[in-house]
Amino acid sequence: MSRPIDSKKRSEQWQELLKKKQYSSLYTYMKEAPPVEVGDFLSYQPLKDCAAIIELFSIEEQASLFEHLQENQQLALYTLIPKRVLADIFANMSSDIRVDFYQKLSNNQKIELLPFLSRAVKQDMITLSIYPRETAGGIMSTDFVALRHDSTVGEALEQMRKDAPSNKMIYYLYVVNHEMEIMGFVKLRELVTASPSAPITDILHDTFIFSEVREDRESVARKIEKYDLVALPVLNSNGQLVGIVSYDDAMDVIRVEQTEDMERFMGIVPDESKDDYLQTSSFQHFKKRISWLIGLFFLSFFASFIMHKYESLLSTLGVLALYLTTINDAGGNAGSQTATVVIRALSLGQVKLKDWLRIVIKECKVALMFALLLSLLAFVKVVFFASLGEFLGRHLALPKEGMLQLAFVVAIALSIQVVVSTLIGAGLPMFITWLGKDPALAASPAITTIVDSTGLFIYFNIALKLLSSTAVL
Amino acid sequence: MSRPIDSKKRSEQWQELLKKKQYSSLYTYMKEAPPVEVGDFLSYQPLKDCAAIIELFSIEEQASLFEHLQENQQLALYTLIPKRVLADIFANMSSDIRVDFYQKLSNNQKIELLPFLSRAVKQDMITLSIYPRETAGGIMSTDFVALRHDSTVGEALEQMRKDAPSNKMIYYLYVVNHEMEIMGFVKLRELVTASPSAPITDILHDTFIFSEVREDRESVARKIEKYDLVALPVLNSNGQLVGIVSYDDAMDVIRVEQTEDMERFMGIVPDESKDDYLQTSSFQHFKKRISWLIGLFFLSFFASFIMHKYESLLSTLGVLALYLTTINDAGGNAGSQTATVVIRALSLGQVKLKDWLRIVIKECKVALMFALLLSLLAFVKVVFFASLGEFLGRHLALPKEGMLQLAFVVAIALSIQVVVSTLIGAGLPMFITWLGKDPALAASPAITTIVDSTGLFIYFNIALKLLSSTAVL
Repeated sequence: MSRPIDSKKRSEQWQELLKKKQYSSLYTYMKEAPPVEVGDFLSYQPLKDCAAIIELFSIEEQASLFEHLQENQQLALYTLIPKRVLADIFANMSSDIRVDFYQKLSNNQKIELLPFLSRAVKQDMITLSIYPRETAGGIMSTDFVALRHDSTVGEALEQMRKDAPSNKMIYYLYVVNHEMEIMGFVKLRELVTASPSAPITDILHDTFIFSEVREDRESVARKIEKYDLVALPVLNSNGQLVGIVSYDDAMDVIRVEQTEDMERFMGIVPDESKDDYLQTSSFQHFKKRISWLIGLFFLSFFASFIMHKYESLLSTLGVLALYLTTINDAGGNAGSQTATVVIRALSLGQVKLKDWLRIVIKECKVALMFALLLSLLAFVKVVFFASLGEFLGRHLALPKEGMLQLAFVVAIALSIQVVVSTLIGAGLPMFITWLGKDPALAASPAITTIVDSTGLFIYFNIALKLLSSTAVL
Repeated sequence: MSRPIDSKKRSEQWQELLKKKQYSSLYTYMKEAPPVEVGDFLSYQPLKDCAAIIELFSIEEQASLFEHLQENQQLALYTLIPKRVLADIFANMSSDIRVDFYQKLSNNQKIELLPFLSRAVKQDMITLSIYPRETAGGIMSTDFVALRHDSTVGEALEQMRKDAPSNKMIYYLYVVNHEMEIMGFVKLRELVTASPSAPITDILHDTFIFSEVREDRESVARKIEKYDLVALPVLNSNGQLVGIVSYDDAMDVIRVEQTEDMERFMGIVPDESKDDYLQTSSFQHFKKRISWLIGLFFLSFFASFIMHKYESLLSTLGVLALYLTTINDAGGNAGSQTATVVIRALSLGQVKLKDWLRIVIKECKVALMFALLLSLLAFVKVVFFASLGEFLGRHLALPKEGMLQLAFVVAIALSIQVVVSTLIGAGLPMFITWLGKDPALAASPAITTIVDSTGLFIYFNIALKLLSSTAVL
């Protein structure tokens, strides 16, 4: 029968055994569990315990556990494990995780480790470490099987059998010529069902999806997603096969880019560290948000300037101040929500820049509906509070007959502001895309700050127009 | 050599051929291309052309193309294709996409189609259609290979060869007993390298990750991601294997949930429709955002109430109105940014509710740094504009010596407001999680509206305290 995996219960059991220092029964249980859970568990144990437990495993298992440790535990463990053992672990790790770890070592640590590494591992790490993190080269691994184009199905199966216990991805096998130029790929399922004496070219797919090594990692992930691939070959500019990106790397990219998009949109500068929330220091959190806040500070000068420009109006009719917040909030919401929708549609590829007119028309229609509804609500609100004001004791200058006029001013200013904010919220991400940048840079706080200015300008001008023609001003 | 796939060029070429009605050469080119691209292309062609082109393909290919059409084109095509042909196409589609399509048919259309469907297809669709969309059952497919636990490796390979041309996922093969209860799984790579006469139990993994059929789809996607699985078995409450979810379904879930999270956080109600931005009507867009806006309208009454409560203060010292926006924006930003960070950390599982104190402490530290910096900037801003006001001609009551006092009031109110907003931004998502709901419901517009109230309250009270003790009031 099935053995249900309950990771929480399991980690409690392990904690118990660890307290009693029963390392060998701990090993027995852990050997049965998925490495990612053991790695998660060991990441939060004292370094000595972690080292003592890891030692019990075979080198292959140690490599797999090491891959799943948190970064700080990996680095701490580095100092405890003899370099010769570490070199063995290194040889058994996935090539992409290995190079990520290696790049986090200090120069001295690298020099210490290098003499113990095999030539193949060293070369592999050099290949992988030259590409920036946000490119196909930066996320690819070299754990692929390359078949010669003149081999038979039987020879390919033989080679696959040899490679099977390794970390290599074997669902797709890539066929290359003498120059390592890619000719196509074969699927394992087809290899298994083909006649062993047939030439490999019989089952070759010579039309295939690939990525250039300098291609943006998000575009790589999107290809894997769109074409439902298990893995995607990565080629250099000579058409030579240099690595593969597999579906699980693509998932990681989707998650990371998702967090980055959301952070960017809220005016937080994403960083490349893999630390989670609690590991990131407060100062680090502060730094991630500060550059935007300073930018917004200067952007907000426009709003302040407009406010001061209409000081005389505010001094004559202080009651206007009561609905500043209503106008600002409605504009901020309308602008930010529109930006959210447009940014998602742009980044999911549902709309292109050339659709700009259709986007603007659609958002205008939506904005008009909001404008109608929200201005009605605002009208009611002004009347409600103005009537309430009679009870609370009114202090700001508003002649009795001015109440309805004020309600009109707020309602009309609000509806214009909603339309203007919607257009800004739709236009800014498109403009940023047109500049070749990530549309999520049209951050919500920036939109809010920009539409503060338009809101004040609209509000004060409507007030001047409408109220000066009546008896109020 | 490699044949680079340039989907854009290709679709231009197809468009050209289509204009000349050269269906047969169109077919030759399309046969070579990935079905997803052909499906994308055909989705935007006139229905007649689409039907004429699809007819040229084999039934298996038609099924694959049909899967990749946009929903509205699928439904339109439904009326054109004879039901007998459609039933054949149905039999060759992936089970999960097939049932999704079937559920979109009207009752009459279902009744029309049913007599042509094979018993197996009907049963399969009944099984799959009983589970809600947001569960494991709602996204699973039945395209798996189940091996009997008493078979040998050789028999398993034979069965796999038989299933290989189908849609079935064959990288993992599931081993079941007579009752269809799952015993474990074998990997194709291990099956291929094992001795054909060995019992299948020799290479059986009997500890494995699975999902319950009613488990939330996001949790399923998370398991596939965490354990790097190609596919995950789905069991009913009797431990029987009822379906699988594969990595590409998980990717879809991650994307959909990502959009939903972002929309929810911006106060947009996500819907289950798969329509993209331009297909969604303006009224639909309006409806997605309206419920929140009405809620916010009532929430904003608190801020208006506070504003009216301090009307006398505003009437005496109208200059206070000039910095309302500064206080509100700083609070809104601080609160929303904190909520973004906390929601991401919660939904990525980086923090748990029991970490609440650590989160609050960390955010307080960050808030204090912001408070210090922003209040300094605000102080400078007030002094700047007050000095500028001398040129612009000051209209609002502020005695000469009051400038510094006002700058102090704004700076102190702002720093308290930043800390309070940060705490609300961190606390609200945790509170909503504690209620068992999605933390992204702590939407940014709601936080902004809530901290408007605290901001006004803090600002007016600081003004009363500090200014009444000086000569200004």
